[in-house]
Amino acid sequence: MSHPLFGPEMKLILAEHNTAAMRDFCEQLHPATVAEVLDEGFTPEQIWEVLSQADIRTQASVFEYLPPAVQEEMAVKARPQMGQLLTKMSHDDRADLLQRLPPSVTESIMRLVDEADRQDIAKLVQYGENTVGALMTTDYAWLPGTLTAAEAIDQLRQQAPDRETIYYIYILDDATKRADGSLAPRRLLGVVTLRDLILAPRHALVRDLMETELATLRYDDDQEAVAKLFARYDFLAAPVVDAQFGLLGIVTHDDVLDVVREEATEDLQKQGGVGPIEGDYLDARFGNVWYNRMKWLAVLFVLQMFTINAMASFESELERVAFLLSFIPLCLSVGGNAGSQAATLVIRAVALDQIRTRDWLRVLRREVLMALALASTLGVFSIARTYFLTPDSILEKVPEGFFWHLNWVVTFAVMGICLTGAVIGAALPLLIKAAGRDPALMSAPLIATLSDVLGIVIFFNVVRAFF
Amino acid sequence: MSHPLFGPEMKLILAEHNTAAMRDFCEQLHPATVAEVLDEGFTPEQIWEVLSQADIRTQASVFEYLPPAVQEEMAVKARPQMGQLLTKMSHDDRADLLQRLPPSVTESIMRLVDEADRQDIAKLVQYGENTVGALMTTDYAWLPGTLTAAEAIDQLRQQAPDRETIYYIYILDDATKRADGSLAPRRLLGVVTLRDLILAPRHALVRDLMETELATLRYDDDQEAVAKLFARYDFLAAPVVDAQFGLLGIVTHDDVLDVVREEATEDLQKQGGVGPIEGDYLDARFGNVWYNRMKWLAVLFVLQMFTINAMASFESELERVAFLLSFIPLCLSVGGNAGSQAATLVIRAVALDQIRTRDWLRVLRREVLMALALASTLGVFSIARTYFLTPDSILEKVPEGFFWHLNWVVTFAVMGICLTGAVIGAALPLLIKAAGRDPALMSAPLIATLSDVLGIVIFFNVVRAFF
Repeated sequence: MSHPLFGPEMKLILAEHNTAAMRDFCEQLHPATVAEVLDEGFTPEQIWEVLSQADIRTQASVFEYLPPAVQEEMAVKARPQMGQLLTKMSHDDRADLLQRLPPSVTESIMRLVDEADRQDIAKLVQYGENTVGALMTTDYAWLPGTLTAAEAIDQLRQQAPDRETIYYIYILDDATKRADGSLAPRRLLGVVTLRDLILAPRHALVRDLMETELATLRYDDDQEAVAKLFARYDFLAAPVVDAQFGLLGIVTHDDVLDVVREEATEDLQKQGGVGPIEGDYLDARFGNVWYNRMKWLAVLFVLQMFTINAMASFESELERVAFLLSFIPLCLSVGGNAGSQAATLVIRAVALDQIRTRDWLRVLRREVLMALALASTLGVFSIARTYFLTPDSILEKVPEGFFWHLNWVVTFAVMGICLTGAVIGAALPLLIKAAGRDPALMSAPLIATLSDVLGIVIFFNVVRAFF
Repeated sequence: MSHPLFGPEMKLILAEHNTAAMRDFCEQLHPATVAEVLDEGFTPEQIWEVLSQADIRTQASVFEYLPPAVQEEMAVKARPQMGQLLTKMSHDDRADLLQRLPPSVTESIMRLVDEADRQDIAKLVQYGENTVGALMTTDYAWLPGTLTAAEAIDQLRQQAPDRETIYYIYILDDATKRADGSLAPRRLLGVVTLRDLILAPRHALVRDLMETELATLRYDDDQEAVAKLFARYDFLAAPVVDAQFGLLGIVTHDDVLDVVREEATEDLQKQGGVGPIEGDYLDARFGNVWYNRMKWLAVLFVLQMFTINAMASFESELERVAFLLSFIPLCLSVGGNAGSQAATLVIRAVALDQIRTRDWLRVLRREVLMALALASTLGVFSIARTYFLTPDSILEKVPEGFFWHLNWVVTFAVMGICLTGAVIGAALPLLIKAAGRDPALMSAPLIATLSDVLGIVIFFNVVRAFF
């Protein structure tokens, strides 16, 4: 969505250095809207000029909605302001930003941040990319279990401004020391929702209200675990713990949406035979995209070379029935198409946990039946096609009395190749899954390539049977 | 996730008709966990036996986590219990369920439901599938703007048990009547969060606390609008309004996750050349899957028929350079692979709003450059490949002194076809988008088919140039 009215107005406001209008603009619109307007055609300096009129908390919210590339430019341009802003940003977003900046910039900004924030940032940047740890934030609300509901609400009033969410409150144990004397993360005892606190009698103890059957995430889980957990339970947030059940942070519902979209993009790209490409389409680096496309094209090119050997091994047929060669691309394509469909369905079903490895026999039976049904229907198409639509230039070359031989060759080749394509399209992802690898590696182009090689063998064997 | 311990235990409990254990099981575990255990190998009657020991609210929560097929069986088996349960289910879930049941069952259950609930259900079932209206729920929390923060919290205590969420509270205008005397939906004035209410001074008026710059959804928007709104703003819920800004319902964050996953599945299926297939892989009806695969295979088969005409039109070349024919599948596949990559990237970028129609020139320039880079790299591969790896049976047939002609034909065909495939793979989705249709219709198999026809023309034109 663009904002046709706000953009020109902001240009005017900037030209007049109308600071009151800048503040109003920042503080009265939703931060996402402010960020969108500022992202359309303003320089980092101008964005800073507008933002710095608002209070620091608003600045931080708007900043978090700006695209990563703009955030980086702004950080490089104004390190002192950035140091201030960091203290009010949500803990996960600021750790992400600092990881993306050039080390020298990060260092000079970190010098402006106080000790507690510096430690928090250092803690968050240590987690591997695409892990739960990299998604989580440390600004969660927590309380000891010994408070009453009324006391808990009072304490939350103090905490609220600096917490990502106060709707889930984590109940933690007393602090304990590790062998080396440092403090271990406090153990997670339970969670209570703000709704529970509001509904509870004033003097009820939090520890009696809290839910203790907890679904938790491990900091070193893959981020896919987040998507699965939130798809199962309708949570607003989920706690992230270490091996001793110490609370390290929380992952909130809005991060999950990003993960699900990211994973879907990755799956689509894998299916299309593109190594995952990070970042927006127009911002992605050319060399990176080239590499991630070329590596697959190269693999497919090498595998596809077997079609040459397959073709060459049938040289006597090639010469004898030259009038049949025009049908080869049609017959081969059927295998690629049917295989690509089967692979798509099976890979997605595995990704969504709709089928598990133990279901493989059921899946395979289903796909073989489906392949038979599809092949039979295409067979009918093929008979009609060859009967009515074979070009005269081909018919002229068919030896007398061999027209139906031609028709049967094409039809049985189409059916055989459709069957083979659909079955390997379904079976290979399951095999890869059983071997503990990602079934999405069986991309549509890869299935099509394998099916091409088999298709040539099938085609010429059918030719041999009839001629 | 399965629960190896709970299943056998539950079998024992059921055999002993241990009602106390059934109640404990339902009320102490998370409803999602209870639903998962009951979904593994128990009959609808057994599930009812276990559930009915718990209080009605717990029954409703567990029921909502059961898979649709099980819900339907249970509803058919026990209509009186179902009528009771409906009153405590969330409004969107019960409307969905009643729409899926056979009309006679729905009718007999509806007779057991009181008037207010019946009207609410009737309101929700009227919205079209895949619209915002079909996703929303009517059990939102709302207040008039004239209350103080303390009064508002008190009122919420009353409302809370029956509301999907009390973290966003909608502030509504006084009721107005339509021309026909019926009540119009109350106009939405603003929204206040429970966090704001908790933080506000006790006597602050809600109407002074509320946010009035609202991002809303229209009941007749496509459900994609929900995914886009929640991706932009980190909301827990969004209000759904009619043309007069009357509040009809809300969509909550957990529904959004389902929408995003559903849309991703649909996009993947389109890309794989499968008409969207609803429901889980193993539950989908065979005939429905057959139809949604066959229709695409048929379209592709018909389009692919042009390759026969293309081949046949080069009959003199076909005969003259028969030793080159073994290279055709290799050359053609390069176009399909490069095209499938380009289409995947462009279609996903359009879906995520990363590129808009006005960016088409930038996208096309980028894709042409990329296609050139990929084609050149593949050209090098191809020279090496033909030089070192051409089978002897083919070499024997190459006329004296024409080996390099063979090499150049294959290499230039590979490059030309790669270029063409990549460019049409990027351009066609953009064209479709500009024409106002869904770019995802340009599936990988469709691009591959079009690229095959063009590929044959390119291949034989290169042959003509060299022989």
